[in-house]
Amino acid sequence: MMDPNPSLEYAAARQDQSLDELKELLRIPSISTLPEHKPEMRRAAEWLAARMKEAGLSSVKVMPTDGHPVVYGERKQAGPEKPTVLVYGHYDVQPVDPLELWISDPFEPEVRGEDLFARGASDMKGQVMASLWAAEAWLKTSALPLNIKFLIEGEEEIGSPNLRPFLEAHGELLASDLCLNCDSNILSADIPSIVYGLRGLAYFEIRMQGPAGDLHSGTFGGAVPNPANILCRLIAGMHDSEGRVTLPGFYDSVRPLAAEERHQLGQLPYDDAWWMKTSGAPALSGEAGYSATERASARPTLDVNGLLSGFTGAGSKTVLPSKAMAKISMRLVPDQRPEQVAEALDAYLRHHAPPTVTWEVIHWASAVPSILERDSEAVKAAIRAQQTVWGRAPMYSRQGGTVPVVGMIEEALGVKTLMMGFGLPDDNLHAPNEKFHVPNYRRGIQAYIRFFSEYAG
Amino acid sequence: MMDPNPSLEYAAARQDQSLDELKELLRIPSISTLPEHKPEMRRAAEWLAARMKEAGLSSVKVMPTDGHPVVYGERKQAGPEKPTVLVYGHYDVQPVDPLELWISDPFEPEVRGEDLFARGASDMKGQVMASLWAAEAWLKTSALPLNIKFLIEGEEEIGSPNLRPFLEAHGELLASDLCLNCDSNILSADIPSIVYGLRGLAYFEIRMQGPAGDLHSGTFGGAVPNPANILCRLIAGMHDSEGRVTLPGFYDSVRPLAAEERHQLGQLPYDDAWWMKTSGAPALSGEAGYSATERASARPTLDVNGLLSGFTGAGSKTVLPSKAMAKISMRLVPDQRPEQVAEALDAYLRHHAPPTVTWEVIHWASAVPSILERDSEAVKAAIRAQQTVWGRAPMYSRQGGTVPVVGMIEEALGVKTLMMGFGLPDDNLHAPNEKFHVPNYRRGIQAYIRFFSEYAG
Repeated sequence: MMDPNPSLEYAAARQDQSLDELKELLRIPSISTLPEHKPEMRRAAEWLAARMKEAGLSSVKVMPTDGHPVVYGERKQAGPEKPTVLVYGHYDVQPVDPLELWISDPFEPEVRGEDLFARGASDMKGQVMASLWAAEAWLKTSALPLNIKFLIEGEEEIGSPNLRPFLEAHGELLASDLCLNCDSNILSADIPSIVYGLRGLAYFEIRMQGPAGDLHSGTFGGAVPNPANILCRLIAGMHDSEGRVTLPGFYDSVRPLAAEERHQLGQLPYDDAWWMKTSGAPALSGEAGYSATERASARPTLDVNGLLSGFTGAGSKTVLPSKAMAKISMRLVPDQRPEQVAEALDAYLRHHAPPTVTWEVIHWASAVPSILERDSEAVKAAIRAQQTVWGRAPMYSRQGGTVPVVGMIEEALGVKTLMMGFGLPDDNLHAPNEKFHVPNYRRGIQAYIRFFSEYAG
Repeated sequence: MMDPNPSLEYAAARQDQSLDELKELLRIPSISTLPEHKPEMRRAAEWLAARMKEAGLSSVKVMPTDGHPVVYGERKQAGPEKPTVLVYGHYDVQPVDPLELWISDPFEPEVRGEDLFARGASDMKGQVMASLWAAEAWLKTSALPLNIKFLIEGEEEIGSPNLRPFLEAHGELLASDLCLNCDSNILSADIPSIVYGLRGLAYFEIRMQGPAGDLHSGTFGGAVPNPANILCRLIAGMHDSEGRVTLPGFYDSVRPLAAEERHQLGQLPYDDAWWMKTSGAPALSGEAGYSATERASARPTLDVNGLLSGFTGAGSKTVLPSKAMAKISMRLVPDQRPEQVAEALDAYLRHHAPPTVTWEVIHWASAVPSILERDSEAVKAAIRAQQTVWGRAPMYSRQGGTVPVVGMIEEALGVKTLMMGFGLPDDNLHAPNEKFHVPNYRRGIQAYIRFFSEYAG
């Protein structure tokens, strides 16, 4: 293993410079969703490309897509026997509304206490710069112990609409052994953590129709099928009394949670009281036999996301609705597949929907779940890197949400992702007064420096 | 019984005049919901009061309310040993939009074939004039065999907001033995019928809340209660597998249908094919053991009228909604009471709603069901009157909808209502090209003339 000390010293000697540079990038209002910010998007990409060149990367280019460009840079001096890491990040940021709730200008970064406040500080220019600084620290002091490629996109905040075709078009350029996704967080400033599993998603809309048109509930009520009642009955039947999903075969591909993994998840500082306080729910519920943390991250779910039928204004209207609609999504865990649960939903409806209604299902969105084995080289290297920097072992966690780019990269490039970023849960992502904890920026640079040598072996 | 023949001859000799007068009333655009038509409302009331005086009624007056006035007239010569009938009608009409779909001007009545086309022809100026002509025919030829009072309101099409206080303020003036509500129809031009029962209504909104605010379904899904799923489960549980309502005590006050009554309802020309064709539903459903006609008119129901929760736009949004709302109405049959089923709903929710949600129920609307015994003097008199005029026995039917004024009159005056009007199911009520079948106008006058003597005994 290469000695990281000179790299760590290089970074430590340039703490002010690295913070100033982050501020410089944060001053560019690269809001991807606003068409009038297109020049700013270009400016951020160009700034980043120039910075990559200074860091010692080669083949740096601003690559066009049908939307905002991707910034690419690489350094492949470690040779083919060493692993190649694809660092993923994004340089676009969320809009800033409501502006009046910001204490300081979102695009004039300001350090207050130990936090740097600016739009994009934690999501995720701070982590783009930390990973770039880690690469530079190696490149300016000794050889980078592995091959590295940077893929920094400009459309993450709008759903990465052009990333998948970009990945497919540049498979050779982006070929790698591991993706390091820096768009992530740790449990708290003092508790590092590794997200080794992400849930997937399958999102559906059920459209149900009974009578040809809305009817008077007095004249027809009782004789004519009410699609709203029927839809409620079908949705109710999708769970049993123990909170398990009843769709046929729904759990067939679910990896069981081993006792050791459950023990690790049980160490996370999220007890029932935490879930109740954070959600504001009067009580918790869910699949019997699992903790709230397990149910929210390591077990699959089926939730209604929307309901609409008939009259929804103030007061009363005695309509027997002809239509009823439900948005239903399932969070998937390894090794479930969106197309499997889509078929399970369809089979359930074919079997249980009565002949009094017609129905169709629209499959709006899909994302595969993903998991990186806790005993894989990547996870073990990340554990060692964080342990050294923080002086304590990181916790293992699984994330209940979906990071669509992880599934995209796995499917398009065949590359697994390690999530390792250094945001905090209270960084106000997508909200006013977004911040990045400055000590995390510094520890993040150190952790990436160490990860590169740990993973290179 | 008084001989109706001179009265019938009086009416028969004035067929053109009675039709011309109806047209005159129809030319007044008395649309109660349009503020700019207030002068027309007044004009219609004054016209009707003048016409009542000409007919031989006394104490005729246009009586103020907080909205449009009531027209009142009476004739009490039959003496206290004879019954008093309160004739109910309304002189207001629905708006005419969309005007471009009318073949002729809605306020320039036109006879095409055997139908008179105009807004308000069937709903219900035709029947107001028919009942008034029947009274005049008696008054101008011999003594009216019973005491009569006319109550013609101007706000039926806007929900009679001022009628209840009017009834309560004038209880003595309006005291009577029976209300004859002419705002009704028969099965077809050749098949007279008696509506002897009306369903009531209890209309609720359930508002359910789980978490304090909308949550991300990835981060929280599985651990936190979803009020939309829970509301669906609660609604599903409101019916059993046989289509019966499960609210505790829901059927306790329901009058059973006797075999003879079921036989009579079975004679109505509404078989399953008719219900399917009329509703456009792919199949029928409802309470086991009853025909569609019975389920839609003589059995109580529970229907969802509206559902709303979470995200209802196009596409997907992975929200775990904090709130879910359902509008739920029950159609009631004698002797159910709205307050009883309100308590039953509350008891059901108290027992079945889980502690993971909070909820409240808003009781938006109520109407008591009503029934006039088929062997009552009023129904028997109506049967004899229709049988003589049409040459065939009328059918007995119950109406699935609610006529709120019937409940109001029963509650405020303690008077039962006989529904006897002569509209047809295809008269385009509330729609373009409203019409009244001219032979029904003539037979209606005859039927009211005969009913007055039949009921007087």
